[in-house]
Amino acid sequence: MSKRGRFITLEGGEGVGKSTNVAFVEAWLTSRGIDVVRTREPGGTARAEAIRELLLDPAPNEPLSVDAELLLVFAARAQHLAEKILPALARGAWVVCDRFTDATFAYQGGGRGIDTYRIAQLEAFVQKGLSPDLTLLLDMPPDAARVRLEGRLRDLNTQRDRFEQERVEFFMDVRQAYLERAASAPERFALIDAAQPLQDVQMVLGRVLEERVAQWQ
Amino acid sequence: MSKRGRFITLEGGEGVGKSTNVAFVEAWLTSRGIDVVRTREPGGTARAEAIRELLLDPAPNEPLSVDAELLLVFAARAQHLAEKILPALARGAWVVCDRFTDATFAYQGGGRGIDTYRIAQLEAFVQKGLSPDLTLLLDMPPDAARVRLEGRLRDLNTQRDRFEQERVEFFMDVRQAYLERAASAPERFALIDAAQPLQDVQMVLGRVLEERVAQWQ
Repeated sequence: MSKRGRFITLEGGEGVGKSTNVAFVEAWLTSRGIDVVRTREPGGTARAEAIRELLLDPAPNEPLSVDAELLLVFAARAQHLAEKILPALARGAWVVCDRFTDATFAYQGGGRGIDTYRIAQLEAFVQKGLSPDLTLLLDMPPDAARVRLEGRLRDLNTQRDRFEQERVEFFMDVRQAYLERAASAPERFALIDAAQPLQDVQMVLGRVLEERVAQWQ
Repeated sequence: MSKRGRFITLEGGEGVGKSTNVAFVEAWLTSRGIDVVRTREPGGTARAEAIRELLLDPAPNEPLSVDAELLLVFAARAQHLAEKILPALARGAWVVCDRFTDATFAYQGGGRGIDTYRIAQLEAFVQKGLSPDLTLLLDMPPDAARVRLEGRLRDLNTQRDRFEQERVEFFMDVRQAYLERAASAPERFALIDAAQPLQDVQMVLGRVLEERVAQWQ
């Protein structure tokens, strides 16, 4: 029987370089011979990605209620856990996930102002005690991140989704909530300055991973 | 200021004649000069109907986890409440809804075997105390209802959805859960024998409505 795998999440606002660094973390672990499942939230399975579409759809004629948004996030998470994350961890693979429940506390809690207690209720309902082993928080000021995001949207010639349409104050609240989450669970979180050049960000990521992998073995 | 409207739900398994009788109840109330909003669950708004699609999609390659199903049901309900039911009741309209939370207790609780406590948690989370004023439960044995459902699917030349594909045992559990709900809240429920000829069902419905409307005025 294989040992249960490790569960690593990457967190941060729009434009902080999450996608690039999720790929870096995956490559780093794979190069050490670790079986890695890379995934993302909301989404990660076909049904959960369909829920993601509903969450991101700007559909201007009907605002999505805050409760509905929160329940959709956790519905996608329940599906992702049941069909992908838990089976992978059980067979000994490590899961590297682009966003998880800290994002819900940051976006729906910090950004939308939903009572943290309501989020924690659903977290307990769906996760039944499961929490990431390590969370890499990529942090930078929202105005700098916004510049990166604008560039990416222009390059991809794509429209902003329902979250990307939010004002900069929303992202300042999201960042603040992330920083508070990190401060409240310092053993789980590694706070990484994402405003540095990418090379330096990845040097820090590598150092954090080196340390944790050594601890876990 | 108008008085808050009344909230009436129709419940029952597949093939008991819910659609026909929802229309009958709407017509009955409208003929008494009542402003009626007729709606259904899961669904009732564009975003909630999109969630309904996810719930009914048989997508054979990925089972929908029981938690995800339950959270999707309540996500659709939160949206339906915020965007349609609560505004209608607030302006004094009566809402006639084809299925509501009793269906969740019957299908996800009775049918899927989800712990009733978990459903009640989400009910409290989303409804914040709101409950129908009257629930008309159309009851008949599942084998007889199945005959009607088969006829309808044949007439419409349509495929069965994810629930209609369930075995008859599932619908026996659903019926049992409905009957227990009705027994536990006799003031709210009217139990109606839906195996009678339609004319008789509607005579009973009319009598129940007459009585309640008189009580409420």
